[in-house]
Amino acid sequence: MIILLKDKVNENQVKNLTNWLEGNGFGLHISKGQNHTIIGLIGDTSRVDMDLIASLDIVETVKRIQEPFKSANRKFHEDDSIVDCGNAKIGGGHFQIIAGPCSVENREQIISVAQAVKASGAGMLRGGAFKPRTSPYAFQGLHEKGLELLSEAKKATGLPIVTEIMEAAHLPLFEDVDVIQVGARNMQNFELLKELGQTRKTILLKRGLANTLEELLMSAEYIMAGGNNNVILCERGIRTFETYTRNTLDLSAVPVLRRLTHLPVVVDPSHGTGHAYLVKSMAMAATVAGADGLIIEVHNDPPHALCDGKQSLTPEQFDELAKGIQNVLPFAVR
Amino acid sequence: MIILLKDKVNENQVKNLTNWLEGNGFGLHISKGQNHTIIGLIGDTSRVDMDLIASLDIVETVKRIQEPFKSANRKFHEDDSIVDCGNAKIGGGHFQIIAGPCSVENREQIISVAQAVKASGAGMLRGGAFKPRTSPYAFQGLHEKGLELLSEAKKATGLPIVTEIMEAAHLPLFEDVDVIQVGARNMQNFELLKELGQTRKTILLKRGLANTLEELLMSAEYIMAGGNNNVILCERGIRTFETYTRNTLDLSAVPVLRRLTHLPVVVDPSHGTGHAYLVKSMAMAATVAGADGLIIEVHNDPPHALCDGKQSLTPEQFDELAKGIQNVLPFAVR
Amino acid sequence: MIILLKDKVNENQVKNLTNWLEGNGFGLHISKGQNHTIIGLIGDTSRVDMDLIASLDIVETVKRIQEPFKSANRKFHEDDSIVDCGNAKIGGGHFQIIAGPCSVENREQIISVAQAVKASGAGMLRGGAFKPRTSPYAFQGLHEKGLELLSEAKKATGLPIVTEIMEAAHLPLFEDVDVIQVGARNMQNFELLKELGQTRKTILLKRGLANTLEELLMSAEYIMAGGNNNVILCERGIRTFETYTRNTLDLSAVPVLRRLTHLPVVVDPSHGTGHAYLVKSMAMAATVAGADGLIIEVHNDPPHALCDGKQSLTPEQFDELAKGIQNVLPFAVR
Amino acid sequence: MIILLKDKVNENQVKNLTNWLEGNGFGLHISKGQNHTIIGLIGDTSRVDMDLIASLDIVETVKRIQEPFKSANRKFHEDDSIVDCGNAKIGGGHFQIIAGPCSVENREQIISVAQAVKASGAGMLRGGAFKPRTSPYAFQGLHEKGLELLSEAKKATGLPIVTEIMEAAHLPLFEDVDVIQVGARNMQNFELLKELGQTRKTILLKRGLANTLEELLMSAEYIMAGGNNNVILCERGIRTFETYTRNTLDLSAVPVLRRLTHLPVVVDPSHGTGHAYLVKSMAMAATVAGADGLIIEVHNDPPHALCDGKQSLTPEQFDELAKGIQNVLPFAVR
Repeated sequence: MIILLKDKVNENQVKNLTNWLEGNGFGLHISKGQNHTIIGLIGDTSRVDMDLIASLDIVETVKRIQEPFKSANRKFHEDDSIVDCGNAKIGGGHFQIIAGPCSVENREQIISVAQAVKASGAGMLRGGAFKPRTSPYAFQGLHEKGLELLSEAKKATGLPIVTEIMEAAHLPLFEDVDVIQVGARNMQNFELLKELGQTRKTILLKRGLANTLEELLMSAEYIMAGGNNNVILCERGIRTFETYTRNTLDLSAVPVLRRLTHLPVVVDPSHGTGHAYLVKSMAMAATVAGADGLIIEVHNDPPHALCDGKQSLTPEQFDELAKGIQNVLPFAVR
Repeated sequence: MIILLKDKVNENQVKNLTNWLEGNGFGLHISKGQNHTIIGLIGDTSRVDMDLIASLDIVETVKRIQEPFKSANRKFHEDDSIVDCGNAKIGGGHFQIIAGPCSVENREQIISVAQAVKASGAGMLRGGAFKPRTSPYAFQGLHEKGLELLSEAKKATGLPIVTEIMEAAHLPLFEDVDVIQVGARNMQNFELLKELGQTRKTILLKRGLANTLEELLMSAEYIMAGGNNNVILCERGIRTFETYTRNTLDLSAVPVLRRLTHLPVVVDPSHGTGHAYLVKSMAMAATVAGADGLIIEVHNDPPHALCDGKQSLTPEQFDELAKGIQNVLPFAVR
Repeated sequence: MIILLKDKVNENQVKNLTNWLEGNGFGLHISKGQNHTIIGLIGDTSRVDMDLIASLDIVETVKRIQEPFKSANRKFHEDDSIVDCGNAKIGGGHFQIIAGPCSVENREQIISVAQAVKASGAGMLRGGAFKPRTSPYAFQGLHEKGLELLSEAKKATGLPIVTEIMEAAHLPLFEDVDVIQVGARNMQNFELLKELGQTRKTILLKRGLANTLEELLMSAEYIMAGGNNNVILCERGIRTFETYTRNTLDLSAVPVLRRLTHLPVVVDPSHGTGHAYLVKSMAMAATVAGADGLIIEVHNDPPHALCDGKQSLTPEQFDELAKGIQNVLPFAVR
Repeated sequence: MIILLKDKVNENQVKNLTNWLEGNGFGLHISKGQNHTIIGLIGDTSRVDMDLIASLDIVETVKRIQEPFKSANRKFHEDDSIVDCGNAKIGGGHFQIIAGPCSVENREQIISVAQAVKASGAGMLRGGAFKPRTSPYAFQGLHEKGLELLSEAKKATGLPIVTEIMEAAHLPLFEDVDVIQVGARNMQNFELLKELGQTRKTILLKRGLANTLEELLMSAEYIMAGGNNNVILCERGIRTFETYTRNTLDLSAVPVLRRLTHLPVVVDPSHGTGHAYLVKSMAMAATVAGADGLIIEVHNDPPHALCDGKQSLTPEQFDELAKGIQNVLPFAVR
């Protein structure tokens, strides 16, 4: 970290700052120029509160050289992490398609979708039991009942299950869940992240609607700081001014994240575009771009789905998509 | 709500839809044009899941006529709501300045700031005990200890206290808190909103970093749907591409919200701009635009504040700001 | 187009509106509901000024059913357009890689790059002679001299040339140019678009930094309204909050545009990401997503390029990219 | 400017860079740390191509200390500029309201609006003759005829006139125009800016839809680099995700720009909000925030205006607004 001091600062103030920095365990390299003094910090600056230093009245600007995340940083963990998801693995060459309906609706639906997606090659089953909805009057999911039905589908098919949590207090209900999803709107629900860091469950962390990749990695860092390294990152589209798509899927997130972190990266082209007709092309593009997996909404009867029907594929469409993925997977840039 | 069906839809499908809508208690007005059929819904459509209808394969588009929020809607509650905040009131002509440090740091700091801002005319004291921070390694607040110090400052000055909650499980600690703040990153933490709806505490709900005003009102609706009408809305800046300011303060939110809702609207020019030199002009502009109150960061020693020092005013600067507000308050557009 | 009138409007005003609409050649379908009157317009509504109608005081809202663009609309031109670019073609199965340096710098540079990219399979040569730069003090291109050097490179290699125009008055200089590029900052320079519509030159129109795809299509419509149908659309990244990339490449633009329009769609992963290490993966992803072509920055000596060096590939990197494209092109979703 | 080199760079490359910098007339201050070498540039760095340096392969990062704009910079011109606008002045305590219709429609309209706004205290008349419209099929203005009618209104009332230019080739038509407006979509039409820099006309430069304030100042710099210092800056709202307003008016732009530049700053609350009901409160807020002037759309018959009717005030509403401005102007923060 480089701290650039303001023009003509008081010597005493500089002394106060350098003492404080040394007291915090940093080595310093100080360079006095004609107009500006520059302080270089030597040591683990990922734990420095950069905003605090920037706010000091003698400081002109602060520039990080190191990234502010550490456990998630590829610099300190060169190999891809391989994360366990029940009886499946993801990352480090293990590519996974997670598929299933937006919401769990009833036994017949979830089991039939689970069987269909397994037959087409999906390695995990997704389905929402707790649904974050903008309106309090919209369908919010089947809750405990939904989790039970997911467990039945898991027993019936052997597929590990992925489902969203909305509050740490619900954790006891998630015992049989293999991968706990943190949704985009909770990406910076720091209390939830901290409590998930206390578990050893695998967490699928979705990027927030208007968050940067650095913020996503800092949220992963919250989980990992608690000792839980089982984190999967998910690009699911960001909010932009475009209206033909529900969100704008940022596929460059895949190679950027793969350079910055060792954690697996999956892409959700269903929420990322909001339209069934866009899912296959974006899923294939994500695969070629180097993603470790995909999350795809599949519904046996999309037009009657209780939510997100517009973006769900039929099992037939999913089967075709899965075949397309196999075609391009050998050419993925990694 | 107006539902426009697609070109040449199947009669049976239309019948299924109209039966379902009638079964949900809506009156229907159906109009068949040369190419399109239009269904008008009569009744309380605030509870309709518009996305669900839009996703049906026979539906071209759905257009709301009514807003999707109801309890917060000025149409059903013409007069300004006046919300109790301990011994203070806000809304309906009761203008309040909430002032204090970003974080509670120690007894001396919080009490001296409380006394200073009270002397200058602040009606409430703010101070963070639980701090949402992007990095898990940054200072996160004094927690319980911070709440205790706030209570002491309240006893010492009589000022009601405003402080942020980050998890519903912490609610028992907030008994002596007069106004519970929900921060921008938790604006769509729906489980938290629901639990706050079960209390009768006054909630100050901040707009999310990239959220629309309709989404802000829907989050207020989550609280009100539980029976808690003590909600104050807060504009605190949104994320844009501008870099000279930390956020972009959207002052048009004030007259827009005042037209849409009866709830009080306050403005936070400290977080909204991120720079002390901008706070006075934006605070005065917000007042003239019709805000019901302001939240201002004040610190006895801004350059050494443990967080957000760059945007904090000194007590002297705050005093000057408070005088400026008095000058323009009579001319506020309301 | 559906016009929804306000509650309880005056009969005379409605009569005025319907007379005016009929006078403009539209058939009308009027439906009176309990609360609202709805007017459906029959005819070519692409030429209706929707904002004008929406601003009338008796109008609640206006909803387009048809898209506001017509010449560019696939509904009226089902087959892919195949656009001539000198001795090359693009669209309708003709896939093209356009490659070359950001700026033309000198004879040796442009000819050597042209020869290299041709050898690797590029079908066209790009190179800037007029450079839009944020700062008036930055290098602005070689202007006429740059165009002359491009012509020399064309003679030497046979590759058609693609270069940017910044003002209609420069058109006479562009006689030997095969494809005239309109840059992102000029996407809504409507006077320039109109004058390009008067030529029969092929125009490569880049999406603006914060523009929607509909706005891009409306700008294409400006060119086509003048009778020039030789338009290629280009996705080159949009401005978002992400900082690890220079822009966010919106690859869903490819399948969205291919559904909406018959015009060829190319992708610029160099400007779209701003970093050489991201270009190959995004180029391959764009290809799989169904793009008709790519524009890639290639420089013989990227670290010393006079502009945009950070995102340029070396000829060797380009060769590897071109091979990757051939691998996935057969699997492109179209 | 501070250039931070990468870890372990080759001595020869560093020598090449420092030679090149010195050859460009900069003094250098070089500091070698344990890991990083830092080069400080001494001299006028506003003319340095920062992107070029950042792209060099030995450079980790470049940080400006000075702003990249010079002629517009308040550091080199402490006093407010006072800009002539025909017989009116703006800046340095001269506050001006510019009012008039979006488009000039006919003689009666423009003269009656001009007389009305003058009577209420407007100091200049605005009206569009060349209209930038998203659709080529929308009304584009009366062109030359519109400019003639503006001249007539100027003769009839004595008000200086403000109107938009869309292409440099039209300049001869603008001889009688006192202030030439450059619209948001042309803010980075650099060729137009350069040609306006060759005139001595007063230019009102509007901020682009998604542009930063630094980009706005760099565009002003394009005009001033040609020797024309008669530039007025205009905040007119930026594109955000909010939908209740047409744009988001960024009022913090006023105090930010006033700190960075000596040029006058005006605010356009009509385009900035898109709704007549928001104009008065935002106009008053802008005034209190320290703006040097306002641009307000006024129409004798808003619901029938040929464009932008929804956001126009009636002359009566404008009169009320002008009175409100007088009330708060003495309290403006400057």
